[in-house]
Amino acid sequence: MTFQRGMVHTPFFMPVATRGAIRALPLRDIDKLGFEMMLSNTYHLYLKPGLDVLRESGGLHEFINFHRPILTDSGGFQVFSLSDLCRITEKGVEFRSHLDGSKHFFSPEDVLEIQRVIASDVMMVLDQCTSYPVSEDESHEAMWRTIRWAEKSFQYYKEHFDCERQALFAIVQGSVFPQQRRECAERLAEIDFSGFAIGGLSVGEPKELYREMTSLTTPLLPEQKPRYMMGVGSPREILHAISEGVDMFDCVMPTRIARNGTLYTSKGRVTIKAAYYEKDFTPVDPECDCYVCKTYTKAYLRHLFKAGEIAALIYNTHHNLAFMKRFMNDIRTCILEGTFAEARAKWERVFAGGDE
Amino acid sequence: MTFQRGMVHTPFFMPVATRGAIRALPLRDIDKLGFEMMLSNTYHLYLKPGLDVLRESGGLHEFINFHRPILTDSGGFQVFSLSDLCRITEKGVEFRSHLDGSKHFFSPEDVLEIQRVIASDVMMVLDQCTSYPVSEDESHEAMWRTIRWAEKSFQYYKEHFDCERQALFAIVQGSVFPQQRRECAERLAEIDFSGFAIGGLSVGEPKELYREMTSLTTPLLPEQKPRYMMGVGSPREILHAISEGVDMFDCVMPTRIARNGTLYTSKGRVTIKAAYYEKDFTPVDPECDCYVCKTYTKAYLRHLFKAGEIAALIYNTHHNLAFMKRFMNDIRTCILEGTFAEARAKWERVFAGGDE
Repeated sequence: MTFQRGMVHTPFFMPVATRGAIRALPLRDIDKLGFEMMLSNTYHLYLKPGLDVLRESGGLHEFINFHRPILTDSGGFQVFSLSDLCRITEKGVEFRSHLDGSKHFFSPEDVLEIQRVIASDVMMVLDQCTSYPVSEDESHEAMWRTIRWAEKSFQYYKEHFDCERQALFAIVQGSVFPQQRRECAERLAEIDFSGFAIGGLSVGEPKELYREMTSLTTPLLPEQKPRYMMGVGSPREILHAISEGVDMFDCVMPTRIARNGTLYTSKGRVTIKAAYYEKDFTPVDPECDCYVCKTYTKAYLRHLFKAGEIAALIYNTHHNLAFMKRFMNDIRTCILEGTFAEARAKWERVFAGGDE
Repeated sequence: MTFQRGMVHTPFFMPVATRGAIRALPLRDIDKLGFEMMLSNTYHLYLKPGLDVLRESGGLHEFINFHRPILTDSGGFQVFSLSDLCRITEKGVEFRSHLDGSKHFFSPEDVLEIQRVIASDVMMVLDQCTSYPVSEDESHEAMWRTIRWAEKSFQYYKEHFDCERQALFAIVQGSVFPQQRRECAERLAEIDFSGFAIGGLSVGEPKELYREMTSLTTPLLPEQKPRYMMGVGSPREILHAISEGVDMFDCVMPTRIARNGTLYTSKGRVTIKAAYYEKDFTPVDPECDCYVCKTYTKAYLRHLFKAGEIAALIYNTHHNLAFMKRFMNDIRTCILEGTFAEARAKWERVFAGGDE
C-alpha cells in the first residue's frame, strides 16, 4: 500500500496508539522497530486533546511528530463499548463521553470531518457495532444501518475529500450470522472503497465462529484491495486470517499482555514472573534481535516486573512489538517464497500452548 | 574520581536506580544522557532480587547490564525509614522487611558483605539515621553509634576488601545539632575513608538549618576527598552545597516530580498539565537538546500527561534527567572558568519561583 507518507508492506500489524501514544513505549521505538503504519482512535482523540488542538497543530502527525501513515478507527466501536447512554438514529449516534459525561453526536459525515482534522492516512467509516451475543434481528438492523451509513460516507467522501491524501475503508458487520456477513460484504464490495475491514469480531464469540465468519467474508471482498481484520493480534489468528487473504491487523493485545508480563518468543509464550526465571541469565528470546533481548536477561526482567518497576512495562512492550514486527516480516518472506503453509504449521506448534 | 569502571567528573548528580532500574526510564537513556555514575540501594537489592540472584549473575553491573560506576547506599536510611519494628543494638540493626514482614539483621560488616556481592564501586558504611525532629540526646547516641560503626566498618574493609576495586565512604550524622555534626565530621575525617557523605539532612528540617549544617560540616571533611550530600537534588540546594565544597549528589526528586508533571527548564519550572499549555506547540525548553525537547511540544506532553499515558512519565523523566546532567555540566564549566558565582546567581533567579 502506498500513501503520501510512505509505503506499507502487506501483510502488516499496526501498533495501537489510541490517544497518540503507544502505552509504555516512546514513540520513537515504533520508528526504530520498523513499523510502517500505526493506528489511533477517532473517539479518544476527539475527546482529548480535542479537535481545536489537533487542528491548530496541523493534524495528528504534526501533533505527535510521527510521520508514517496512520489509520484511525472511526470511533464506532468505542462509542458502543465505552460511552454511556448511546442512542442511535438513522442520522447517527448520540452518546455521553466516558470521561466527563458530556453529550456528543457522531453522524457518518461527522466522523469523516473529525478524521479530516486528524489527517489520518486511512479513515474508517462510522459503523454500528453490536456486542456478543446479540439477537439475529438486532444484528440485522445494525448491519443494514452500517451499510446505509457506509453508502452515505462514501458519497460524502467523494464529494468533499482529497482521495489521494486520505483513503476510506468500509467495515463489514453482521455478528456471527453467515447470511448477514455475506449480505454486508457483498453490498459494501460494490462501492469503490479504498479497502475493507472486518469488524465486530473478537468481541467474545467462540473461536470457531470467529474463524467461520472470517473465512466466509474474506473471499467476498475485492482481491485487489486491502482487507483489514480489526482488533485481532494473536499470532495464530493472524495466521489463519492471512491464509484467508487478510492483509492488515491491529490489536492492543501484544502490548497489553506485555504489561501483564507475558512475552512472545520464537519458542512460545514466556510468563516472565515465573519463579523458574529467577536465576535464568539468558535473554527472553535468543533469536530476537531487539535491544531488550540483546541487553537484558529473564532474571533481570523478572526482577523488574515483580518489583513493579515501570521500566519492566517499557522493556516488555518493546520486546512484544519487536516480536510482532519480526513475526509479520517472517510471514511476508514465507509468502513471497511460497512456504507460508510450513511457516504457519511451525507457528501453530510454537504457540500450541496458547498465544493470548 | 577514577574507578575501574570509568572516570566521573565532579561535581555530579547521580540518577537513582533503587532496585536496579530508573523509574519510568530505560537504563540505556542514562548512558546516552552521559551520566557517569548512578546510585542503587543495598536494602532494596538485598530484599529483591536478593543476594543469591546478584551473586550468581556476577554482581549488580552484570545483572542490570550497566557498566559505569555505581554507588550503593548502605541501607541504613531505608532500614530506619521503611522497615517495620527496627531494633538497634551495638552489634547492628534488626528489622522486618517492608515487603513481607520477614526478619533480618544488618551489622556494619553485613552491609559491606552485601555490597561486596552487589559489587558497587562505592560502598557506604552502615549508619544510624534519625528522623526530624529528634531529641538532642537521641541524636547524640545515634551519632556516636554511627562513628563506632564507621570505625568497625573501616577496619573490616581494610582487612577483607580489595580497596582498589571498591571504595568506602563514611556518613556524617548529628541531625541539626552543630556540636554533634562537628564532632562526627572530625572523628570520621581522622579515618582514611575514600570519601565522606553528609547524611541525615533533607528529612524535613527547615532549609536554614539544613544549610547551616552543610556549611559547618563541609570544611571539616578532607578537601582532597569527595564530599557527598545524600538525598539532595534541587538545583538551588545543589548550588549552595557546591559553594560549600560538596562534589556529589543523588536524589529521586527530579524523576519523582517529572512523574508528577513538573519539568525543569532553563527558565524555571514548567507544570506541564497547566491549561495554558493546551495549544503551546513549542518545546518544554528550547535551550534543551534532549530528544524530548527536540521532538515534542508542550501541548503533546500535556495531552499525554492528562490522558494518564505511561509515555508521559517516560518523556518527563528523560527530560528532567537531561536537565540535571546539563545543569551539572554547566556548573562544572563555570567552576573551571571561574564564573561559578555568576552562574549561581543566574540559577537562583531562574528558580526564584521554586525548584521542588
